[in-house]
Amino acid sequence: MDGSNDPSYGDSIEDDDNDGMSKTITRPSPMGSTNIGSRTKKGRVAVLASGRGSNFQAMIDAIERGEVSYEISTLICNTPDAFAIDRAKKHSIPYVVIDHRGKDRESFDMEIHEVLIGSGTDLIVLAGFMRILSPGFVDLWRDRIINIHPALLPSFPGAHAHRDALEYGVKVTGLTIHFVDEDMDKGPIIFQHPVEVRDDDTEDTLSMRVLEMEHHWYPRIIDKMILRKVHRIGRKVTMKK
Amino acid sequence: MDGSNDPSYGDSIEDDDNDGMSKTITRPSPMGSTNIGSRTKKGRVAVLASGRGSNFQAMIDAIERGEVSYEISTLICNTPDAFAIDRAKKHSIPYVVIDHRGKDRESFDMEIHEVLIGSGTDLIVLAGFMRILSPGFVDLWRDRIINIHPALLPSFPGAHAHRDALEYGVKVTGLTIHFVDEDMDKGPIIFQHPVEVRDDDTEDTLSMRVLEMEHHWYPRIIDKMILRKVHRIGRKVTMKK
Repeated sequence: MDGSNDPSYGDSIEDDDNDGMSKTITRPSPMGSTNIGSRTKKGRVAVLASGRGSNFQAMIDAIERGEVSYEISTLICNTPDAFAIDRAKKHSIPYVVIDHRGKDRESFDMEIHEVLIGSGTDLIVLAGFMRILSPGFVDLWRDRIINIHPALLPSFPGAHAHRDALEYGVKVTGLTIHFVDEDMDKGPIIFQHPVEVRDDDTEDTLSMRVLEMEHHWYPRIIDKMILRKVHRIGRKVTMKK
Repeated sequence: MDGSNDPSYGDSIEDDDNDGMSKTITRPSPMGSTNIGSRTKKGRVAVLASGRGSNFQAMIDAIERGEVSYEISTLICNTPDAFAIDRAKKHSIPYVVIDHRGKDRESFDMEIHEVLIGSGTDLIVLAGFMRILSPGFVDLWRDRIINIHPALLPSFPGAHAHRDALEYGVKVTGLTIHFVDEDMDKGPIIFQHPVEVRDDDTEDTLSMRVLEMEHHWYPRIIDKMILRKVHRIGRKVTMKK
């Protein structure tokens, strides 16, 4: 999976910005260029997940229904028992387990990076990936890492969005799809969709209703990214129809 | 307007909690009880405004269309040139100007309080009122002061909600109707409604679209309050149909 010596997947550069990443880093090729010479013209999406991977499944389903113009190049999990791996096996999607334990964040991220380069990645999609990516990694893949968060950011960032929303007592929550930058849950927003909070909602019922919308929207917004219909200037993100 | 000696409007009590308010405070009568002996059964709403008062106008319009079960007992403005006063004159609604300048917050609030007691107030509605109410005042009128904020709180509190929302780059904003408590824009939420942010939105276009929703919803939620269909336990607020 290591494509760092394959010029079609990126250019090796010296690490001159002293960001603590390894000596020689292969920069990602421009988005879309990884398909040169390949038989498919589809965009290549790498999915990073730590757990159940229900959004990963939603992406698989959209692909199998022929609704989107990308394929999943690789699933990368940091936990060997993530249920997302079972889904990958079932649908013959390449997967890699990169255990985060016993290594620093930069080393962990560089292992991920090498896999991403090796599999010719256009876009990195976080789907319940519970590790913070290092600034150096984020900078290498700027505008090419997206995440989905189950709240209308900037409200309720962090790992307990539904619990926090219910405790605050909001009447409207939702989902946010955003670029990943150096600050957790603070990157430029690509898409948001509201979901009503009901009087009798629990964390379970609310998360299920938001998740349903996540599964609907995430594959579609990923498609917009792959089709280069999403443009960012500073924090302002626009999306073509 | 001073009804502090009128037992039908409330009971005088000693200020025993040392909150800096005046020596003898007339507590508000229970909600709805101010109509005892009056010819009307309608709830009495006092509106506090500092400026244009477009939500005040929306309330007037809803009353004149016969859609709601309350009347506006008084408009209280802290600025003598607030356009809301012109609206009050036009519709023969009693109004009082209480200038905040040259007095401390507690004295200012006690002047408001005396007017509210004197006019038999069931509910205090803030409509673009740009002064922070003191904790003592808020405590006297707990669960009977509501405000409308042009964002989906807890996102974008403060005086520049639309500007802040556009700068952050959210795709969904909205309005929040909430109880007023000791912390600005943090009281328990009664109602929220989402509004889509468009790519070409400016502060003007966005605020106009949110304002349209404010004018639709504020009179209706005030009616729910007056009809005692709104119940609060801690931060959890429920509303009956």
